[in-house]
Amino acid sequence: MAETIDGRALARAVVEQVKAGMVALDRAPGLAVILAGEDPASHVYVNGKVKLAREIGFAAEVILLPADTSEDRVLAEIARLNARDEIDGILVQLPLPAAINTLRVMAAVDPEKDVDGLHALNAGRLSQGSGGLIPCTPLGCMKIIKSLVPDLTGSHAVVIGSSNIVGKPMAALLLEEHATVTQAHVHTRDTQFICRGADIVVSAVGKPGLVRGDWIKPRAVVIDVGTTRVAKPEGGYRIVGDVAFDEARHVAGAITPVPGGVGPMTIACLMENTLTAACARAEARRLAAAA
Amino acid sequence: MAETIDGRALARAVVEQVKAGMVALDRAPGLAVILAGEDPASHVYVNGKVKLAREIGFAAEVILLPADTSEDRVLAEIARLNARDEIDGILVQLPLPAAINTLRVMAAVDPEKDVDGLHALNAGRLSQGSGGLIPCTPLGCMKIIKSLVPDLTGSHAVVIGSSNIVGKPMAALLLEEHATVTQAHVHTRDTQFICRGADIVVSAVGKPGLVRGDWIKPRAVVIDVGTTRVAKPEGGYRIVGDVAFDEARHVAGAITPVPGGVGPMTIACLMENTLTAACARAEARRLAAAA
Repeated sequence: MAETIDGRALARAVVEQVKAGMVALDRAPGLAVILAGEDPASHVYVNGKVKLAREIGFAAEVILLPADTSEDRVLAEIARLNARDEIDGILVQLPLPAAINTLRVMAAVDPEKDVDGLHALNAGRLSQGSGGLIPCTPLGCMKIIKSLVPDLTGSHAVVIGSSNIVGKPMAALLLEEHATVTQAHVHTRDTQFICRGADIVVSAVGKPGLVRGDWIKPRAVVIDVGTTRVAKPEGGYRIVGDVAFDEARHVAGAITPVPGGVGPMTIACLMENTLTAACARAEARRLAAAA
Repeated sequence: MAETIDGRALARAVVEQVKAGMVALDRAPGLAVILAGEDPASHVYVNGKVKLAREIGFAAEVILLPADTSEDRVLAEIARLNARDEIDGILVQLPLPAAINTLRVMAAVDPEKDVDGLHALNAGRLSQGSGGLIPCTPLGCMKIIKSLVPDLTGSHAVVIGSSNIVGKPMAALLLEEHATVTQAHVHTRDTQFICRGADIVVSAVGKPGLVRGDWIKPRAVVIDVGTTRVAKPEGGYRIVGDVAFDEARHVAGAITPVPGGVGPMTIACLMENTLTAACARAEARRLAAAA
């Protein structure tokens, strides 16, 4: 029977490290979140992020914009946050309203404050292995994986899903750790066969029950990034992953539950990225002052 | 028996398209190549590039620097080329002398003039599917592949090698075309087994004879990026690819020879990238003048 990975416990450890890392700074890291529109899930996510940031002792603020906000308005808010020295991290909560071009917005964020790691410059740095800020969810997944498999050299990893926010950066991180990486997606034929050869499976699709028990190689590590909201008969919602958990846990070596797996790690890694950005910016100020 | 792909003929077609595209410009595209050190192969490559550029009608120049050139000197040359409006493309011939940090040098090139597609911003744009200049060799390989398989959706592609200049951008291009992509490399276990499942194999390792006939799925497309210089008994060198050609051609559906396959396409794609950069910069000037 698979080990069920305790994402909350791993996330607490990341948060403790962030707290310890803050002592090197002469002021609290500053995080600003831009939230446009009324999507209830986005509001829940942003509240969770800001709450944790404040608990840790970050200066956190939310810029709420109406659903009919123009792209120019979002770009103007980003320019203001780029210019404010006390802001170390800028997070634009996705999805943005449909009329707004996400890539153009992400390109406007100062790459050194891009704590979601979605600026093309950070995506390129990740691909080339030259540092930069890494998207929070794949960063969290990688911490989970490395807690179980410290050396990934030669492992075969399969990433299902090829989004810019999870699938592609996840593949880049696994490659950086010398895993052999297969990127599968909606057009892949026989994903089941490909998965069966994988020592590590990361599913980031958003399709409940996609990954069945007989897709999993015995003792594989299974990371479930799926978060689909499913209505409960008694009202309200529950969050469901991509993996048929009750089947997969009989085959896998370790598996993340949903909820309580990747989700808490994503938020913890946002804190880590904000600290990373704050430290890098403090260092840049110190070097500039010394020059 | 496999079709032997005529890279020279495909390259001529690319060059003809570049010539046709030049008529939209009010001046010749300008290409500058920085070549540091005495590596004979690099001198041969640069001569070939500049010769073709001039034949097409580009303004091409070479900046020759001694092997003991400092990084600061290279950066100063790049800054000068970035500032010169008539220069549309800047190519820094690799490898640079060992004392020079390649990533720092590539980061200094204006991304809009980065005709080798090696700036992190262009690597990120490629990864995110948002345009940008694409490294010449994988761009050329993709043109070869699409000349044989116009729709790659659902194909399984295996890329052997994970360099920033070929392997990683090749995988990104294949993914962009909706192929399922496996990136294999020096740490991969059982590359042979992985290759056998591939509809498309791209090998970019530099290890003669690495890919054997029994690694190839019947009728697969095999693209050989390897270029290893092997001394001939009678003196001089010959260029050898990664694929055991005489074995592979009995199994593959189509295969690139070495030489005469990927090589000519790489140079042709440098011309295309220079034209692309020149057109984009002309458009930016027009928009700036109109504003």
